[in-house]
Amino acid sequence: MAQAAMVETASRDGLDWPTLFATRSARMKASEIRELLKLLDQPDVISFAGGIPDPALFPADAFSAALTRALTGPGRGAALQYSVSEGYRPLREWLVGRMASLGVACSIDNIMITSGSQQALDYLGKLFLTRGDTALVGWPTYLGALQAFNAYEPTFDRLDPFANRSTDDYRATAAAAGGSVKYAYVSGDFANPTGETLDRTARGRVLDLAESLDIAVIEDAAYQSLRYDGEEIEPILALDIARHGSIEAARTIYCGSFSKTLAPGLRVGWVVAARPVIAKLVLMKQAADLHSATLNQMAIHTVASDGFSAQVDTIRGVYRGRRDHMLSALSRHMPEGVSWTRPDGGMFVWVTLPEGIDGAALLARSLETARVAFVPGRAFFADGSGANTIRLSFSCASEAMIEEGIARLGKVVRQQL
Amino acid sequence: MAQAAMVETASRDGLDWPTLFATRSARMKASEIRELLKLLDQPDVISFAGGIPDPALFPADAFSAALTRALTGPGRGAALQYSVSEGYRPLREWLVGRMASLGVACSIDNIMITSGSQQALDYLGKLFLTRGDTALVGWPTYLGALQAFNAYEPTFDRLDPFANRSTDDYRATAAAAGGSVKYAYVSGDFANPTGETLDRTARGRVLDLAESLDIAVIEDAAYQSLRYDGEEIEPILALDIARHGSIEAARTIYCGSFSKTLAPGLRVGWVVAARPVIAKLVLMKQAADLHSATLNQMAIHTVASDGFSAQVDTIRGVYRGRRDHMLSALSRHMPEGVSWTRPDGGMFVWVTLPEGIDGAALLARSLETARVAFVPGRAFFADGSGANTIRLSFSCASEAMIEEGIARLGKVVRQQL
Repeated sequence: MAQAAMVETASRDGLDWPTLFATRSARMKASEIRELLKLLDQPDVISFAGGIPDPALFPADAFSAALTRALTGPGRGAALQYSVSEGYRPLREWLVGRMASLGVACSIDNIMITSGSQQALDYLGKLFLTRGDTALVGWPTYLGALQAFNAYEPTFDRLDPFANRSTDDYRATAAAAGGSVKYAYVSGDFANPTGETLDRTARGRVLDLAESLDIAVIEDAAYQSLRYDGEEIEPILALDIARHGSIEAARTIYCGSFSKTLAPGLRVGWVVAARPVIAKLVLMKQAADLHSATLNQMAIHTVASDGFSAQVDTIRGVYRGRRDHMLSALSRHMPEGVSWTRPDGGMFVWVTLPEGIDGAALLARSLETARVAFVPGRAFFADGSGANTIRLSFSCASEAMIEEGIARLGKVVRQQL
Repeated sequence: MAQAAMVETASRDGLDWPTLFATRSARMKASEIRELLKLLDQPDVISFAGGIPDPALFPADAFSAALTRALTGPGRGAALQYSVSEGYRPLREWLVGRMASLGVACSIDNIMITSGSQQALDYLGKLFLTRGDTALVGWPTYLGALQAFNAYEPTFDRLDPFANRSTDDYRATAAAAGGSVKYAYVSGDFANPTGETLDRTARGRVLDLAESLDIAVIEDAAYQSLRYDGEEIEPILALDIARHGSIEAARTIYCGSFSKTLAPGLRVGWVVAARPVIAKLVLMKQAADLHSATLNQMAIHTVASDGFSAQVDTIRGVYRGRRDHMLSALSRHMPEGVSWTRPDGGMFVWVTLPEGIDGAALLARSLETARVAFVPGRAFFADGSGANTIRLSFSCASEAMIEEGIARLGKVVRQQL
């Protein structure tokens, strides 16, 4: 009784917080799916939900040695001290070389270090979007990009480089929503969630559209290093520079990440763009979190300098095998009417179910009867469509788990037909 | 010639970025003072500008051991992996104990880990401020808070707990600016920049004002552990809980930091508040940078668990001595008409010069003729006043540097009289 009375008092005395919150807070909602998946740490569940790298592949010994080195000797104070908002200079210098190898000629003044590429998406939304402005995104697109941009209360319009829509139509749609089109967000390589890659023609069309609308392009290259088949395709930023002669004349803003290659837990990514963009982002970062952790940037620099290519080769080999197993298992266990992508890299296979099968309902059923987890696809669509899609990740599953899990999932799908 | 032609082309082809940027970007400007101070790494300059901890005092060996431990054994994959947005659970549990020792009864659901307390300020601005809303801040206040909040385009009104202003006046002023009053931001302990502490009466008045306006209180406790004299004063959050019976009924949001006690370069801080606030902040963090670095939270947890109090005792002893030397040197070297605060802790002494002496002009003169650096005070005032104030930091200066630097500065001030 006393307990209940206290709770009641607290509730009566508590502030009516939502009335104090900014309008943007209405868009910050817990995802039911994410809440559901939180409960799935049980060992008997086979999960294709995560979309995270396999921790067994992290270069933990190299990081341990790098951290010890950073904290030994006369420079150790600096490793634990405040540092500049643009990021650790030797890491930015290393990235100049890395970007050059991708066809992007730039200087350290074109690079800022971020706390993962997720932070770059947040900052770019913050830099470009006034409430009511329009961001062009794919249908579907990376859920985390929608969440990052949502904080700045934009309208989303569909980015389809092959659609026959006039610039006037894009502009009129944006004006009707109360703002203007600011950028096209695109993940060109083995994208989350579809696993699909934009070829050179499609990349060129994205640039054509951005030029005709005179907007920026945000290129999310989080998975770019994870190619398992086929020829490398230059980043959109490289194509943009080739068209216009210099990164200072390019409208593309490239977001990179060490999360998928070295380790995500250190939270180190980077942005590459023309200097006026980087200069504003540096001021923004100074105001928002001062800088990314100094020690982490030093450790990433050491591990990347000593063995980035070797590490990428190792994880490519493992993930390639898992992708092959998943594609093979899908072809053996999925019934007629189900289709899926065949990614050249990354971590995801995107499955389209027959119309009428709802991915979220399938997840509930699959968890209950088959103990297999995945992510329903609807959350990746800004317009709420895509009910009959699901995302499968192969990055953390052994071959045996893939075989067993896809067999069970195929059975659950059959039962829905 | 070719070089010049290329630059011209680049400039002609480049986007007109400012027309694409959000309205908020107009408020993100490089500080002239900060740019000036960047150039001051010369060894012959005596700097009281920094406001950063002395790196010689960092527990680097303890961090090295903690990091090695985290990256050895079966848990090492988790140390480098993605983790939850609310933060590392053992660290949040440790903080429950730490907050209890300060008179704040709370659970881990009242705590979120941030990348330094600067990030908490950014997130709280984001959570509460719709463009045009009002934030109450001190005249002067922490420059980094003004910068963090500025991104959300608020109006600043003056927080003075002893002013005789009616709630109607605050509200009418905010309404005229296009929004409403959302929170009072206050640093109660040895605040940056003044070094001053709010006593219990003043803390109570802040709460009274917040209650009468029905707004939140953001309590910045970055320096709270650095007390050198006098009795501990409970956080405003503790007083709020004492008034209302539970943290769930409290309107105060407490922002803590390990930057001033353990090390800033790891970027670990925390927020403590009622659950509805923490729940929104967790969603916001998930969308903005996923989580603070996993490994850093583990290292901070280990080092704090093993020796937080001992570390705080050590740095208190050193900084107390430096504060005493600075106060003594000021009393010996400053001319009549100059006054300053006598802080009970923290890192700063705030100097008021005779009317008509401009702090920024004094800095230019001091750098040129005396090679002594400090921060002019005007940047800390949201209304641009405070021209005749300067901030001196004693945290990184040896006793000999303090004596020599203040003697030289006193001479420069005399020349301005």
